[in-house]
Parts: sequence; structure tokens; C-alpha cells
Amino acid sequence: MTLAFIGLGHMGAGMARSLLRAGHQVAVYNRTREKAEALAPEGAQVAASPADACRDCEAAITMLADDHAAETVVFGQDGMAGALGHGTHISSSTISTALARRFTVEHQKRGQDYLSAAVFGRPDAAEAGQLVVVTAGAADVVERFRPVLDALGRKTVVAGVEPWQANAAKLCGNFMLASLLETYGEAFATLRKAGVDLHVFLEAVNALFGSPVYANYGRMIADEEFGSAGFALKLGFKDLRLVLETAVECASPMPLASLVRDQFLSAVAQGDGDLDWSAMTRVAARNAGL
Amino acid sequence: MTLAFIGLGHMGAGMARSLLRAGHQVAVYNRTREKAEALAPEGAQVAASPADACRDCEAAITMLADDHAAETVVFGQDGMAGALGHGTHISSSTISTALARRFTVEHQKRGQDYLSAAVFGRPDAAEAGQLVVVTAGAADVVERFRPVLDALGRKTVVAGVEPWQANAAKLCGNFMLASLLETYGEAFATLRKAGVDLHVFLEAVNALFGSPVYANYGRMIADEEFGSAGFALKLGFKDLRLVLETAVECASPMPLASLVRDQFLSAVAQGDGDLDWSAMTRVAARNAGL
Amino acid sequence: MTLAFIGLGHMGAGMARSLLRAGHQVAVYNRTREKAEALAPEGAQVAASPADACRDCEAAITMLADDHAAETVVFGQDGMAGALGHGTHISSSTISTALARRFTVEHQKRGQDYLSAAVFGRPDAAEAGQLVVVTAGAADVVERFRPVLDALGRKTVVAGVEPWQANAAKLCGNFMLASLLETYGEAFATLRKAGVDLHVFLEAVNALFGSPVYANYGRMIADEEFGSAGFALKLGFKDLRLVLETAVECASPMPLASLVRDQFLSAVAQGDGDLDWSAMTRVAARNAGL
Amino acid sequence: MTLAFIGLGHMGAGMARSLLRAGHQVAVYNRTREKAEALAPEGAQVAASPADACRDCEAAITMLADDHAAETVVFGQDGMAGALGHGTHISSSTISTALARRFTVEHQKRGQDYLSAAVFGRPDAAEAGQLVVVTAGAADVVERFRPVLDALGRKTVVAGVEPWQANAAKLCGNFMLASLLETYGEAFATLRKAGVDLHVFLEAVNALFGSPVYANYGRMIADEEFGSAGFALKLGFKDLRLVLETAVECASPMPLASLVRDQFLSAVAQGDGDLDWSAMTRVAARNAGL
Repeated sequence: MTLAFIGLGHMGAGMARSLLRAGHQVAVYNRTREKAEALAPEGAQVAASPADACRDCEAAITMLADDHAAETVVFGQDGMAGALGHGTHISSSTISTALARRFTVEHQKRGQDYLSAAVFGRPDAAEAGQLVVVTAGAADVVERFRPVLDALGRKTVVAGVEPWQANAAKLCGNFMLASLLETYGEAFATLRKAGVDLHVFLEAVNALFGSPVYANYGRMIADEEFGSAGFALKLGFKDLRLVLETAVECASPMPLASLVRDQFLSAVAQGDGDLDWSAMTRVAARNAGL
Repeated sequence: MTLAFIGLGHMGAGMARSLLRAGHQVAVYNRTREKAEALAPEGAQVAASPADACRDCEAAITMLADDHAAETVVFGQDGMAGALGHGTHISSSTISTALARRFTVEHQKRGQDYLSAAVFGRPDAAEAGQLVVVTAGAADVVERFRPVLDALGRKTVVAGVEPWQANAAKLCGNFMLASLLETYGEAFATLRKAGVDLHVFLEAVNALFGSPVYANYGRMIADEEFGSAGFALKLGFKDLRLVLETAVECASPMPLASLVRDQFLSAVAQGDGDLDWSAMTRVAARNAGL
Repeated sequence: MTLAFIGLGHMGAGMARSLLRAGHQVAVYNRTREKAEALAPEGAQVAASPADACRDCEAAITMLADDHAAETVVFGQDGMAGALGHGTHISSSTISTALARRFTVEHQKRGQDYLSAAVFGRPDAAEAGQLVVVTAGAADVVERFRPVLDALGRKTVVAGVEPWQANAAKLCGNFMLASLLETYGEAFATLRKAGVDLHVFLEAVNALFGSPVYANYGRMIADEEFGSAGFALKLGFKDLRLVLETAVECASPMPLASLVRDQFLSAVAQGDGDLDWSAMTRVAARNAGL
Repeated sequence: MTLAFIGLGHMGAGMARSLLRAGHQVAVYNRTREKAEALAPEGAQVAASPADACRDCEAAITMLADDHAAETVVFGQDGMAGALGHGTHISSSTISTALARRFTVEHQKRGQDYLSAAVFGRPDAAEAGQLVVVTAGAADVVERFRPVLDALGRKTVVAGVEPWQANAAKLCGNFMLASLLETYGEAFATLRKAGVDLHVFLEAVNALFGSPVYANYGRMIADEEFGSAGFALKLGFKDLRLVLETAVECASPMPLASLVRDQFLSAVAQGDGDLDWSAMTRVAARNAGL
């Protein structure tokens, strides 16, 4: 297919490469042009603006940092909205459910289709086309672009017919990861004060849960390896805020999400916002006097 | 080895069978005698009291419901303490770290060794000798009884040289499971109100975490299958209380454990104490008006 | 002075009357015109729009339900911004600190001054000119309008030179009230289950705290008199959300505010949003099985 | 009346003096004898043991630090239980509801009456006989000793006919004070970061709540005057633990009490256990990076 890909950060670059590898024709745009040019050798056409990228494309995939960036790319000067024609916007950014609803309405007004297609996974999974894709939108549109979604991930699930439902699912998934971090933070603080070797405890945890996610985060947190921000703490904080906004929209209290949000905020207040989000476990440690 | 096994509930019966299967000689005792007699065909000798069971044994393994039951079996009339001689008490019950320290001291006074050997896993894993064993105690005692521990589980880890450290690790492990339940409870309440199919969401969760624990609990909670109490909610509540007592001893605040404890208490207050502990997720659902 | 007053709800009507009683000339506007006309006999001039009300006034006081209403009155069609000339906008609405900052900037652009002048007190205090006023803004502007503020309340304090600081103080004050509600909710649930008469307990509480606020809310909650919404629960929920937004701006975690917010959300989810905000105590009662 | 008074700490000494001043005959005992001897000039007889103090008394009032001290004084060597005859034990200590029930049963076995008579107020109120007394027990026993209770305080309320109900009420009262501390802690942390002068904010708070308790704690916390431990933080922490135990007995979740308990525990972990309990507000400040 003729595609546009906008937003070539840690995740986006790998996703764009997966699409090129699957044989799609991809015009790429990034605010910092170098990141777009890095994809030219692999066959991507480098575009000068979001509008430029998505002209004549069947679908434009966006992978941006937050609501503000996503709004700017769509509605800003030289934005997608005016150039997409009758194409489809597939948003993979972790944005608010409110913005997903706004995109749905605004694209519809312009005769454009809109899908949310949130992704789970770290940059290496994006690179390898091994993400987990949670999409939502009109069934025929989902079917039309299934080859695109399948090129991004090893699994695609459909959360519903309203695009924002995929964003709700994505935010709840990130909440699950974040609450695992807090769980580790508290268990480790207590066990360190109890004189239990964390790696021994992790052997039991790994035997019990059998999950690579538990294994990876457990090791990172036990070893306090927070430097290389696979996922920046301040972005994790943003996601907790977004899941709580969705919880308000749905009138569904999430006290654990609130607790985790506050721990992230404490981490930000203490200057750890640019570390990997697993560094939020330092808050529990500090509160235990460690 | 010549062993005693005291406490033949869902978990204990399977553990005793694993020991018999491994070729150990096992005298068994249970308050309700029928449960002991059920093991006779497999070679167990049925004892009339804890004292009777552990006379002349090298080690007596206990698997009891709570601190009160464990204290009664050890220090009560016809209890173990007076009959164990120079044998070793291996406690697999999920008891408080305070009681584990008391056992350590009291057995030592009597010239007896004491190990904590907490286990992770559900009854079917106990039956199959596939538990995860977290033990702690003097290194030579651990080594002496490693064959016993290895017969109980697929993996044995040593949390430290003080027995209570194994109990701390076990309680933190149960806390990790309980906080997963609350995580599911909140995510599912929000997603149900968002109209997202929980089984679709679980497909993404399973692809992401790759953990049988997540898969099993996710399915049970989505399907509201709380009837067959694999692990009774009121016992889970007890464990949350115990981990918080350990947190106090260690001066390590665990706000997430507190939150989860309060949700369990709400479930108990609303009459769900005898259901499987995953039924604590109904509290989040009720608070969302579901 | 020549004043405009916009927003004549429970609080605003009483405040406008206090200004009239103090001898000020007041043009009044309300979306539902009847509420404006009710003030005509007391000397108010009834205006047809916010713009109409504030033409030629020295200051326009606004008392509106939320950010959305305040923005509409200021920037909407026939709004204040275009008609205020070089007058001053004095905002008494409980709005977000973010909107207060926006008002500051936007009025400044138009050569207009802006003060936040938040008020504490229930409608009867507004009627009697006995509110507590927390204002903030440029010192000379505060001084110029002190007679207006003094006509509204029995006490005026100055929170800072940036208007949003008064909003932060107001939101923190409402947080203090809301956390008192939750405190009562939990204490009463436990004492009811303990069989302690709540009015006896309140005698001790009143002797201890000596606060009319404690006395009033204590009695209302003990008697479950939630019907006459002195302050609607859903508006209280909004304020908790606003204080948490301010907490994020200030990077200051407020876990108690989060907890209270979630209890309000549960009350909303269970259909109590239109009751008095003290009805949020029903959540603690329900979670105790009452 | 012929009374014994056991436990002459900050509170007990003042209470004993109030009883002497009211004309009662009082034998006093304290573990550190000097504190007992200090009361001799005011007419107290100095006793050598709890048993010695309560021999031939009509009632023995106890005011001790915690459950352990209270149990030792009653059941220990030379304890009250064996010497009280048919006298009455009036316990003013802040002890657990469980211990109050045990006292009820054990005294009854010995033909002794038992009242809980918890007190609210700081040492200066104890000194002045201006405490608030919350008592519970059999109605005739309460009436018989009303003159004693009235000598201790300015107000006596009766929480019920079972003594432990007074302890439940006392613990809930302390919970109300503790949750006020956390409320101040969070509001002040946010306002400090917002640049709002705390004393200005307190003017509004005082005008709003009109409570001396708010005024005193507000000033102490704003000025960070935590040195002179009117009430030691570690004792406050103990009380939060006790109220949560009562909450478990009553199956009444108290998430705010849990939150406050965890903040106290964090304060203890960071070495502030001997400061005044209002120092628990430093936890919120630290978590905001202050």
C-alpha cells in the first residue's frame, strides 16, 4: 500500500522499517529531519511536512509523543487533516481517549476514516515487527488495513468499533505495567530491609509468574539500572494521567492507578523524570529510608 | 527419610503425597482424621496427634492455615515441641514473620532445628511436586533437608540464614499476586464501562506478559468464576495483613499493600470471604457502579 | 463603584446582594434571566449579556460553575473580554489554576486587570456578606478593589501577586473540607459497626475540635441528610480534580486528595452526584457492607 | 473516693493532680518512682507497685503508653488483677479494642468491674481537668464513677455499655486528628511550591473552620516546630495501627487511615519517630521534593 508514517522516535522508526520490509511504499516525516533521512536507504521517501507525507497515501500512520504533538501534526499548519484526502488516519500514539474521539469526529467531517491502533512493546519489538497491536474502529476499515497492522506486530486484536476503545485498552495495559513497577518497588524495599537477596527472590518470582516482563523489570529494578530510558518516566506519568482521565469518563474509580500516579509524580518532583520509568520504584525505597 | 507431615488441607495433602512418591517414610496427622486416612493406601502412617506423628522423625513438615493453627500444633497439648526430640521442624505454612522468629527461638531452646520452607503454587502443583519452595535457615540444615524440599517443588531457593526471611519472601510473593488481582479489578471495571470485550483485552495482555498466572486469573476474573475457592479470599486477606505486619517490622511503607488489604476487607464485609480470592475484584466493579 | 456581576446561582445571588447593600451600582447578568430580574427590586440593573453588563463598569465580578462556563462568559459571543474596556475582571468562581493564568494573560493583552478572589462559605454566608475571601493579583489592583472584596466577606486575605495563587489556596481549602468528609465517612462506618451512637461520638468531636464546620457536617452525615444540595457532590468532585491538576503543576503529590477524588468518583458512579457533597461518605459505608 | 492512679507520664500526672484537687484520696504508682514522689506534696500516697497502689481502693485508674505496658501493670508480677479485690479498673490508656475486651473478661472473672474511659486533650488540658472523656461500660458502674470522670474532664460522654466501644471511639478520634495532619501536610506542600504564604492561607483556614485544633496544628506545621513532642510520632503511629485493627474487627475498610498509617511509617523509617506527631507532614513535603 501507499502509506505515510509520521513520528520517527524510538518506536516509530522501527515501525516504519517493519512496514518497508513488508513491501509497502512509505513516505516518512519527522520534525527532526535527520531521523527521516535515516530511513531513505531502506526505501522511504522523505517528506517535508505531514501534509507532504500523506498526500495521495491510502493511510497515514502517526506515532507521536503525546496529545499536543498529535494535535499539531493533524490540525496544525501543513498538517494531515487538509492533505489526507479520502485516506485513513491510523493513530498508534498513546493519546487520550478524548483526543481519539475528537479525531474520529474531525476526520469524519472531512470524509476521512480513522483507526486507533495502539501498540505494546519496546523499541526492539517495533524494529522486529513483533509488537502487540490493539486496534479499534469501523470493522471494514480495520479489515482493509489489517495487512498494515499485521506488518507492525505479531498479534492484532480488535477492541471495538469506536476507535477510542483501543486507546482505553492501551492505557489500561500501561496501567498494568505501571502497577507491576509499584508492586516491585514495595516488595523490594521491604525485602532489602529484611536482608533478603533480591535476585534470590526473583528466582521464585520468575518460577511463579513465568513472564519475561517480570524477569526484565525485576532484574532492572533489583540492579537499579534506570539510566537507559527505554521508556521515560515522565511519559509513564503522562499515561497514568490519561488512564485516570479515561476512568473519570467511564465513572470507574481506579485507586491503584491514583496511587501509582502519585508515586510517579513524586519521582518527577525529585528529578527522576528522564530516567526509565522503572525508576519510580525509588520512591518506595526512599519512603522506607533506603 | 523418616518424616512427619501435619496439616492435610488442599495443599498439604498433595505435598505429603509428593514426599511419599519420592520414597520417604511419612507419618501424617490432620485434625479431621479422614484426611489422614485417605493417605494410608499410598503408604502413609496415620498418627493420632502431632506428637504421635513426629516421634522419632528426622523432620516434621507443617502446612497449616494460619498462626493460630501453627501455634496450637507446635505448643498445644500433644503438640510437636515436646515430641520432636532432636528432629527438625520445617514450616511451610504462610505464617507471620513474628511467629517464624518465635519458632526459631523456641525450637532452639529444645535442641531442635527450624526451617521455614514456604511454597508457591496451587493445589495441583502441590500434588505434582511442582511447587516453588522458598526456604531459609542455617545453611547446614537447609542442605540436610534439600532432598525433602526438592521432592515438594520444581525449584528451591534460599532466602537467607534466618528462617523468617523465607516468610517475608513468601508474603511479598503473595502481595505480588494480590496486587495483580487489584490491577485486573480496576482495569476490567474501566474496560467494561468502556464497552471493551475483556477477552479481547486479555489476548493483548497475554501476548504482552506471556504469563500463565496472568492468563489464568485474567480468564477467571473476566468470567466471574469465583466459586471454587482455590485460595479462599479470607486467607488472602490474612496474608495481606501479615505482609503489612512485616512491613511495619522492617519500617518499609507499602501503600499498595494497604490499598489491596482494604479492598479485601471490603470484600469480606460484603460477604465474599469464602469465594476464591480473585473475587476481591468485585469491589472495584461495585465502586464503579457495576 | 460601578460594577457588573455575572453568575447568579446560590452563591452569586447572595454576593450580588451584598454588593448592592454596600451601596455599589451593580449590573447583573445570568443565563437564566429570571435570576437576574429577581435582583431588580434591590436596585440591580438587569443586563442582556455579559458584554452588556460590564460595559462602562470599573470591575466585573464573575461567579460561575466551572472552567467551561467561565471561559464562555469571558471569551464567548457577547462575552466580557471585548466589552470590559480598561475595567478589571474579578473572578470568584472555583476554576482551575491553569484558567486563572490564561485569564491573567488574556486580560493583560487587552489592557484589562485581573484578580482572582475566591470565596469560602455557604450560600447563607454569601447572602450575609460573611464569606472568607482569598484574593491574589497585583498589589495596587487588590487595594483598589478592597472595598468590593470587603463587602463580600468578613475577612479578606491576599495569597500572592499572581492571581492563580488564590485559586490554588481555594482549591486546597476545598480539599481540606473534602478530606474532612472522608474522615467522617470512615470513622462513622467503623463506629456504626461497633455499635457506638454517632451523636455521642460527635459530642466528643465537637468538644475536641470546637468547629462549627465539624458540628454541621458531623450532624448532616450522622443523620444522612444529603438531600438539600448546599454544594453538589459533582461540583465537589470537579474541585478535587482541579486540586490534583494544581498538584501536578506544582509537582506535589497529594495521595489523600487522590483517595478522596476516587471516593467522589465512586459516589458519582453510583448515582449520588446531585446530592450534597457530604453524601460521598456513603461510599465508605457501602464498602463496609452498611 | 479512695483511688489508685497508675502511670504518671505527661498525661497521667496531670490527671492524678486533677483527682487530688477534686478531693479524692489517691495512691500513685509509676515505674520511675520520682514521678510518683513529685505528687506527694499534693497529697498523693506513693505506692511501691501497682498491687500496692490499688489495695483497698474503690477504683484504679490506669494511664499507660500502650497495650504491653497496660497488660504488664494488670497481669504482671505485683500487678493490679490480684490486688484490686472488688474494686473497679478504669482504663484511660489508648489501648486496642481487643485488650479492652480481654480486660472486661478477666476482671469479671475476678469479681472486678471494668470501665474504659479514654481521654482527648493535651497535657495542659489534663493538668487543668479540662479533658474530654469518652467512657463505656455497664451503666451503673459508669454512674458510680461519674464524679471521678467529671474531675478529669470538662465533658464526659458514654459511648456504650461495652467498654471496648469507648476505645473504638477514642481511636476514631485520634484518626480524625491524624488525618487532619496529613491534610495539612499535602495542602502545605502544594502551597509552598505554589509560592503561597502558609500563614496567609491559615488565616483563611482559621476563619473557615474556627477551630483551635486547626489553629494550633496549622501554626506548628507551618513553622515546622516539631521538637517538643506533645505527642510522640511513634505513639501516633501505634494509634493508627490500633484503629486499623479495630477496622478489621468491625469489617469496615478505612483507606484514609491506611494512607495516614503508611505516612507515619515512612516518618518512622526516616528517623522522625520521637518528634511531635505533626512531623509526619514532612513525608508529604519530602515526596514533593521539598
